[in-house]
Amino acid sequence: MLFAVRMDVDLPRDLDPEVRADTIAREKEYSQRLQRKGKWPHIWRIAGQYSNLSIFDVEDNGELHDVLWGLPLFEYMTVTITPLAAHPSDIALLAGR
Amino acid sequence: MLFAVRMDVDLPRDLDPEVRADTIAREKEYSQRLQRKGKWPHIWRIAGQYSNLSIFDVEDNGELHDVLWGLPLFEYMTVTITPLAAHPSDIALLAGR
Amino acid sequence: MLFAVRMDVDLPRDLDPEVRADTIAREKEYSQRLQRKGKWPHIWRIAGQYSNLSIFDVEDNGELHDVLWGLPLFEYMTVTITPLAAHPSDIALLAGR
Amino acid sequence: MLFAVRMDVDLPRDLDPEVRADTIAREKEYSQRLQRKGKWPHIWRIAGQYSNLSIFDVEDNGELHDVLWGLPLFEYMTVTITPLAAHPSDIALLAGR
Amino acid sequence: MLFAVRMDVDLPRDLDPEVRADTIAREKEYSQRLQRKGKWPHIWRIAGQYSNLSIFDVEDNGELHDVLWGLPLFEYMTVTITPLAAHPSDIALLAGR
Amino acid sequence: MLFAVRMDVDLPRDLDPEVRADTIAREKEYSQRLQRKGKWPHIWRIAGQYSNLSIFDVEDNGELHDVLWGLPLFEYMTVTITPLAAHPSDIALLAGR
Amino acid sequence: MLFAVRMDVDLPRDLDPEVRADTIAREKEYSQRLQRKGKWPHIWRIAGQYSNLSIFDVEDNGELHDVLWGLPLFEYMTVTITPLAAHPSDIALLAGR
Amino acid sequence: MLFAVRMDVDLPRDLDPEVRADTIAREKEYSQRLQRKGKWPHIWRIAGQYSNLSIFDVEDNGELHDVLWGLPLFEYMTVTITPLAAHPSDIALLAGR
Amino acid sequence: MLFAVRMDVDLPRDLDPEVRADTIAREKEYSQRLQRKGKWPHIWRIAGQYSNLSIFDVEDNGELHDVLWGLPLFEYMTVTITPLAAHPSDIALLAGR
Amino acid sequence: MLFAVRMDVDLPRDLDPEVRADTIAREKEYSQRLQRKGKWPHIWRIAGQYSNLSIFDVEDNGELHDVLWGLPLFEYMTVTITPLAAHPSDIALLAGR
Repeated sequence: MLFAVRMDVDLPRDLDPEVRADTIAREKEYSQRLQRKGKWPHIWRIAGQYSNLSIFDVEDNGELHDVLWGLPLFEYMTVTITPLAAHPSDIALLAGR
Repeated sequence: MLFAVRMDVDLPRDLDPEVRADTIAREKEYSQRLQRKGKWPHIWRIAGQYSNLSIFDVEDNGELHDVLWGLPLFEYMTVTITPLAAHPSDIALLAGR
Repeated sequence: MLFAVRMDVDLPRDLDPEVRADTIAREKEYSQRLQRKGKWPHIWRIAGQYSNLSIFDVEDNGELHDVLWGLPLFEYMTVTITPLAAHPSDIALLAGR
Repeated sequence: MLFAVRMDVDLPRDLDPEVRADTIAREKEYSQRLQRKGKWPHIWRIAGQYSNLSIFDVEDNGELHDVLWGLPLFEYMTVTITPLAAHPSDIALLAGR
Repeated sequence: MLFAVRMDVDLPRDLDPEVRADTIAREKEYSQRLQRKGKWPHIWRIAGQYSNLSIFDVEDNGELHDVLWGLPLFEYMTVTITPLAAHPSDIALLAGR
Repeated sequence: MLFAVRMDVDLPRDLDPEVRADTIAREKEYSQRLQRKGKWPHIWRIAGQYSNLSIFDVEDNGELHDVLWGLPLFEYMTVTITPLAAHPSDIALLAGR
Repeated sequence: MLFAVRMDVDLPRDLDPEVRADTIAREKEYSQRLQRKGKWPHIWRIAGQYSNLSIFDVEDNGELHDVLWGLPLFEYMTVTITPLAAHPSDIALLAGR
Repeated sequence: MLFAVRMDVDLPRDLDPEVRADTIAREKEYSQRLQRKGKWPHIWRIAGQYSNLSIFDVEDNGELHDVLWGLPLFEYMTVTITPLAAHPSDIALLAGR
Repeated sequence: MLFAVRMDVDLPRDLDPEVRADTIAREKEYSQRLQRKGKWPHIWRIAGQYSNLSIFDVEDNGELHDVLWGLPLFEYMTVTITPLAAHPSDIALLAGR
Repeated sequence: MLFAVRMDVDLPRDLDPEVRADTIAREKEYSQRLQRKGKWPHIWRIAGQYSNLSIFDVEDNGELHDVLWGLPLFEYMTVTITPLAAHPSDIALLAGR
């Protein structure tokens, strides 16, 4: 089940530089682990913003919540969620996906 | 070059039923032709809305405009565009895409 | 899987009275059938508005979309969706639900 | 008398960790006591947010205010209230509730 | 139990003049009957707007809904509701109201 | 001349507790003095919010400004003002007020 | 007593041309009569908009309402009102106005 | 050439009291100097707000920017600008201004 | 003196096709005449919208108003205006423009 | 490929004055280098605001992101992006650009 998720990051200016670097590194690792497991099939930078647009592929709302809540940058983010479904014009449906 | 595009459709209630059916059929055909050409790699229904979230892969802003302007449903849509770039955490970048 | 859904109804003033009455009757029947099947466990009137707040219990985003898309009043509604998950303070979790 | 209440929590980053943990623990206890008394019949996590959607069953606006004002997390919350009434399509009404 | 209610009226330009005059007359009569019963203790014009700010004194959310739903102008109004409670600084409380 | 005024209070978390208590006490005294003088005929708590809805009865905009500017909590408030006039449906007008 | 009032005009496209011309002519005459009486000391066009920004000098909220309600274009306008008072930096105050 | 400018002031609570008093005094002096030169023909307090509505009479956008940028309170203000033009109903136009 | 102007066009669906075509042709001619006179130095399509972003170079607010008011599509447009001034980082200023 | 970009700057009051001066100097240098390379063909001050409206001419969304992300003031800015395309009324198109 797919969700589009926009994440807008706002790191406080007075964050300790080591904490900052460590949090960003853990965020990257966390994201790539979920990408490899197929839970996070797409991540794009939104041009000109400290933001990303991502697609998540999860079992249900509960798993979506756990994945997002576990993000190392979660407390510095504004998160916007859009639940997705198959679109009748999608050619992938023709191929009997 | 990728763009996320949200389209919210608002068909007027008094649209002639034949015009309506024909426009929707042409929209589907138009979308699938662009999907096959790789210009429109993703289209998802937004759950509970007469809306879709799409990803376009075009040469530049001009091509994006022409593709959207040509949509049979264009005059009935509100269109919201988000320019996308590669995200540094994307594992596709590791593989030397 | 639960979703909160707010529906704001805006029936056009010039709707044929018979169509209007028939659509409202079919909406009620549709809603009650889904309530009986357990898909629509709660529906409340929002005081002072032609609106309701509902809780849906569905398999996934796709089923949520189909249920809402099928509402006889769908074309006259603005729909707002909030995906829900279990809350760690919910006493129902203590009982091993 | 029912109210839907959305609570969005925003804990300050510099809150003393002990105060933080203690406040969250007292919030949970406070919520569960009211759940057991039937005053707070539903609490759901809003997926991907530090927020909940709750249903309160109180005598009047005054009791609603007192219950919310007493929340240990009240000063860190944005609260949105929707007064609810019985919906004519609710099957519970058919059973002579 | 008190509620503040703002009503913004938007009568369609093409409303039949007799229907218009009759609806406004019935609205006035409806309002004054409720004022006399003590259900609608205050009604003020909002200066420069086709709007009023009213205070209702009702048993519960259900009665508030029924009163508003029954307004002859209801279908032409946008209604905004604010639930009220006693304020600790109100001198009426000192007198043991 | 009447005005409806909504006041939303946002006390900073790091305000000195004595300053806080003293400011709130002075606010209450200030409000009650104006209530007794008939300048502030109504004050209601907005349920679930650190806010009130008040009605002021003043000579003109200048007096309204002075009264609000003098509130001990003024610097911590967001103030929203609605100028009121007599409503043609008000039964008080029938009695030749 | 002064009020700033912004009026945004939206004339329906299908308004009878004679009604349109007549209403605009009556609006101009109405405005100029009030300007001559000193009730409407300033009127400016907002550049690039079918809108004006005006200053009214009236006895009270009731007179402001009556003046605006009587505008021939009133039913086609969105009206925004800002109550004004003397500013302590105004040099007119130094001259003992 | 006229512009309406709304200025909303938000002085930080922790501003040094001497800096605060000095800045406000310089703002007043700055404003009155421009009023005397005819550049700032009107300044009104917005009732109930730490805000003013002003009319500026300047050569061009550049002068408007320089005047506003030079305000001692500029860094604590939100500024909203509305470009004005002569209104065809203004009686001043009849007198051949 | 420069202004940025965004124009969002919303042509009514039921506009007579000849009127529509004629209005669009006159709009183009009007725009190109002003471009040639140097009054309208830039016009860009906003990608994916029936909108443009333009730069106007006019004597004052009054001329800006007259130019926009005269647009054949004016009554179908929402217009947003941003007054511009020279930027201190502009390299054109170094060359003694 | 062109983009309009609005940048609203909000420098924190407690920024070290040397850091502040140095960042602003680097921003100016960075901007002028890109202007000279033709990547940043226009920059205008927005009158009365600590803001600019700029036009960028870049290869694609990725280059736009890199240019903006590299701004010395980036972390203190709110950035709003509008993708532009050629407008059919632009006289530059007639000359066979």
